[in-house]
Amino acid sequence: MEKMIVKGFRCGTTSAGIKKAGKVDMALIVADGPVVVAGTFTRNRVVAAPVTLTKERIAGGTVQAVLINSGNANACTGRAGYAASVETTAKAAFELGIAADHVAVASTGVIGVQLPVGKMVDAIPALASSLREDGWEEVARAIMTTDAFPKISSATGTVGGKPYSVVGIAKGAGMIHPNMGTMLAFIVTDAAVDRSLLQEITGIGVEKSFNRITVDGDTSTNDTVLVMASGSSGIEQIRRGTEAARFLQEQLEAIFLDLAKMMAKDGEGATKLVEIQVTGAPSKAEATQVARSIATSSLVKTAFFGQDANWGRIIAAAGYSGVDIDQDLVAIWFNDVEVVANGLGTGPVNEAEATKVLQLPEFCVRIDLGLGDASDRYYTSDLTYDYVRINADYRS
Amino acid sequence: MEKMIVKGFRCGTTSAGIKKAGKVDMALIVADGPVVVAGTFTRNRVVAAPVTLTKERIAGGTVQAVLINSGNANACTGRAGYAASVETTAKAAFELGIAADHVAVASTGVIGVQLPVGKMVDAIPALASSLREDGWEEVARAIMTTDAFPKISSATGTVGGKPYSVVGIAKGAGMIHPNMGTMLAFIVTDAAVDRSLLQEITGIGVEKSFNRITVDGDTSTNDTVLVMASGSSGIEQIRRGTEAARFLQEQLEAIFLDLAKMMAKDGEGATKLVEIQVTGAPSKAEATQVARSIATSSLVKTAFFGQDANWGRIIAAAGYSGVDIDQDLVAIWFNDVEVVANGLGTGPVNEAEATKVLQLPEFCVRIDLGLGDASDRYYTSDLTYDYVRINADYRS
Repeated sequence: MEKMIVKGFRCGTTSAGIKKAGKVDMALIVADGPVVVAGTFTRNRVVAAPVTLTKERIAGGTVQAVLINSGNANACTGRAGYAASVETTAKAAFELGIAADHVAVASTGVIGVQLPVGKMVDAIPALASSLREDGWEEVARAIMTTDAFPKISSATGTVGGKPYSVVGIAKGAGMIHPNMGTMLAFIVTDAAVDRSLLQEITGIGVEKSFNRITVDGDTSTNDTVLVMASGSSGIEQIRRGTEAARFLQEQLEAIFLDLAKMMAKDGEGATKLVEIQVTGAPSKAEATQVARSIATSSLVKTAFFGQDANWGRIIAAAGYSGVDIDQDLVAIWFNDVEVVANGLGTGPVNEAEATKVLQLPEFCVRIDLGLGDASDRYYTSDLTYDYVRINADYRS
Repeated sequence: MEKMIVKGFRCGTTSAGIKKAGKVDMALIVADGPVVVAGTFTRNRVVAAPVTLTKERIAGGTVQAVLINSGNANACTGRAGYAASVETTAKAAFELGIAADHVAVASTGVIGVQLPVGKMVDAIPALASSLREDGWEEVARAIMTTDAFPKISSATGTVGGKPYSVVGIAKGAGMIHPNMGTMLAFIVTDAAVDRSLLQEITGIGVEKSFNRITVDGDTSTNDTVLVMASGSSGIEQIRRGTEAARFLQEQLEAIFLDLAKMMAKDGEGATKLVEIQVTGAPSKAEATQVARSIATSSLVKTAFFGQDANWGRIIAAAGYSGVDIDQDLVAIWFNDVEVVANGLGTGPVNEAEATKVLQLPEFCVRIDLGLGDASDRYYTSDLTYDYVRINADYRS
């Protein structure tokens, strides 16, 4: 995979002038023919036009191209916004010589501003002629907004001795309130999979990964995950219930989680990636609730930035999560340093050790509720001066 | 009310060395005899020892003194923490010559550290001898933690031609995630009211004020509102259903709201006080839910700091609130400038006007959902560099 090629797919990028200063802001992913597609989308009640159009277009289970732009979310843009998605995808279809209803679309950027359709239409011929087999990193760069680095993850497998590849790219850095920071992820594979299995694997995987770096289980107006399988590797079709299906599921989950952790790590202004692990919960749902409450607390996140082993804020965030915890049963660890046992601090020696853990760029906070066997985890970042700077300045 | 005196009450402060650098950190409010008391407390599952003890002690409906300290929350301190509250209140009762079970207690400050009981006990005689009738501002200062200014509000009324007074003091500035920033409020009046009416008025008033600057309706481990009525004004007892009762209710609500708005304005690092008004909701509960979602969004709050009329973040926060909104019906105003109509921006002229509104220290954002007649409001502040600084450094 030196050149990161997935058979049956090509991709390209161009600069249409949506972003300032001639930055690359459009990308196109194209399959040789219609391919199997699975998708998950924002659960926000305010849905951007490209999401609405893409849902309609992949309803039949296949897609041939995805047109992506950064710099403008095409959200809260009404009928004109919907028409803009239709028009730009029609132009892409024309240039590619494929059916317009086989073109999906995704946008990310500022909300409430109409797309510069003219500029985009003018740029599409150059975009179509930029297509190549190994352009995934350029695509990952083209879809960045406040991201600090491009996000790519890949894997390979074999079925019946024949190899196949998977490449995933993603963007997203608004991970402190990610329900508003658009997350886009596109995963392509040349494995052969039927649509219902691909959708099932995608749904399960998204829940364990992208939805574990998300506030309140909600998502932005534009969030989109599309998984496309061309079958061009020539492997036998992967069937439900087989070892190959389980392996593909693990691979996709690993890629999703890899991309999701990159987003949390790239949280706007973030300097740390922190795993919040909840164990000893009465149920999985309650473990999730406590983990989310801690992972989204501004006070917990600023304490991480301050490298302060302030477990009081962690236990308080667990206390207001809505889960009926018993403070006397709670234990908390920073990596392997136990700072709370039976709801009480374990003393200054352990706290000094914990402070060293907080100085690491990545660490784990585990809270055991002492109430059962269920567990879950969330990934979060610290809340920093730069978060405020980035978000106070974002539109200007 | 030049000297702000409430008949039947005295108060005082001292420095016990709980905070660094000899700052004033203890306060005492004492009534001439047992007085009627109403209270509301944190709904956090993790409850601080002073809250547990105070709930027990006011269960009978009367109280004679409240011992308050800042610098240490006495939360997550187990049996030793409870014993510390018992011991310090016993010492206060002894110095005052009153029954120990008539002394309520409230603490605010760092979580998870035992109270310095010895220092506090040693300081209580000086505290008891500092009592005077007009010490309310000193008390308001003594209970501050990260507060930038003391919070006092007062009112007077008459019943049957005889005057009575009300004074309220409060502390609280962790208003960005206030479920963890302790809020304390003590309101004293020399009006005569029975306990059940006072509790009812307090409950309704707290819901409309302090609970409208609170994330998720939750509160910290220590939040406490105590309202005490001495009856020492000599007015006739205010009875339920009378004009005097309605007037007292309005007065207390106004004082609560005044104190609550001061807390939001004093939100850690805040430079702006913003009222989030939701109208046109299908129900009051849904209006509250949308208002809370907007008021607590980090992206909305950083946009306020950046003086950016970024209505896209506001509509997106409404969209993920969980309320089934219809984006095509939404309208948004910044004060009287309509920036969104039917879910779409109203253009650059209005947005330029809105930007001027954002430059004000106080303004109102109104979002009309177009779905019904219900409304509610929240008060919030902006999210600033100083918020991060204060909370990254709080314990050090």
